[in-house]
Amino acid sequence: MKVLKDRILKDGKVLEGNILKVDSFINHQFDVELFNEMGKELKRRYEGTEITKILTVEVSGIAIAAIVAQYFNVPVVFAKKHAGRNMDPDSYEADVYSYTKGATFKVRVSKKYINKEDSVLLIDDFLANGNALLGLIDLVEQAGAKVAGAGIAIEKAFQPGRKVVEEKGVRVESLAIIEKMEDNQLSFK
Amino acid sequence: MKVLKDRILKDGKVLEGNILKVDSFINHQFDVELFNEMGKELKRRYEGTEITKILTVEVSGIAIAAIVAQYFNVPVVFAKKHAGRNMDPDSYEADVYSYTKGATFKVRVSKKYINKEDSVLLIDDFLANGNALLGLIDLVEQAGAKVAGAGIAIEKAFQPGRKVVEEKGVRVESLAIIEKMEDNQLSFK
Repeated sequence: MKVLKDRILKDGKVLEGNILKVDSFINHQFDVELFNEMGKELKRRYEGTEITKILTVEVSGIAIAAIVAQYFNVPVVFAKKHAGRNMDPDSYEADVYSYTKGATFKVRVSKKYINKEDSVLLIDDFLANGNALLGLIDLVEQAGAKVAGAGIAIEKAFQPGRKVVEEKGVRVESLAIIEKMEDNQLSFK
Repeated sequence: MKVLKDRILKDGKVLEGNILKVDSFINHQFDVELFNEMGKELKRRYEGTEITKILTVEVSGIAIAAIVAQYFNVPVVFAKKHAGRNMDPDSYEADVYSYTKGATFKVRVSKKYINKEDSVLLIDDFLANGNALLGLIDLVEQAGAKVAGAGIAIEKAFQPGRKVVEEKGVRVESLAIIEKMEDNQLSFK
């Protein structure tokens, strides 16, 4: 998706350790117009696929999922990482290892909000090692629901995320696929 | 705002300790159509007020802020509670006490994303004791920017939030104001 790739080249920053910083337009400050373009493109790619719900995970998937959901006319559920007192104890939960945070955390979704009739589109900002998506797939499967596919803003093709997710039989649509990232330079597939 | 009040009466649940659970349509699963109505109404109320940026805080303000921002055509920034390795060290930070979590936490915004020319609309799901808003106001003031006002989904008028925020000279617009909440019943102002 050209508009996203151009924006990454213009405003993204490649840091040491294969980290791509996009916090000026995706995950600290964000650009709602860009997210709308992403929503239109994901709707186009998933045309004809039944989608009854969008599932994402705290924190940086939420805003993208909210805007994208407008093109699918479905509710959004976000899996919680930081469950407070108000978290429904009757929840599905899965473990996710985060390389960025260097720790395993649990993601939880109340059993009320995914059910076996659902066909769920997973949304996230990044696909790198695939752990967050595997956690979401686990939650959807626990509910007996169907994963319709995944919609990702930025995929790092030099990490194994796509492979591990596709091995679960899940379709992956990424809007910008980065093939190489080194010496403060990146190139797209 | 009638559509929000009706939804609270239909799907909200009053729990012990003055907790209003709205996780089926606001803060775990959320209804993007409802958030769009909230965006239109906030745009109407803030007509004629200069707004250059929307600021909210992790987690449940993010989706509302994203949808509302479409009516103001401005970027959104969310203050981070859970700063990972990628957090910009050059940040404004403020302390916020959360009654729901029973703890004080820091909220942080990179200095890059609020500057002294900004006129900032604060968005959050709840206004109760006002601590989250005070934290956001603190961040905006540290940046030398102006607080244009606050846009809140649900205000608990029996808690001191509005008073403490208005004492800071900040305008508060809440879309549903709950006057009383007891015995599993609530009434609006």
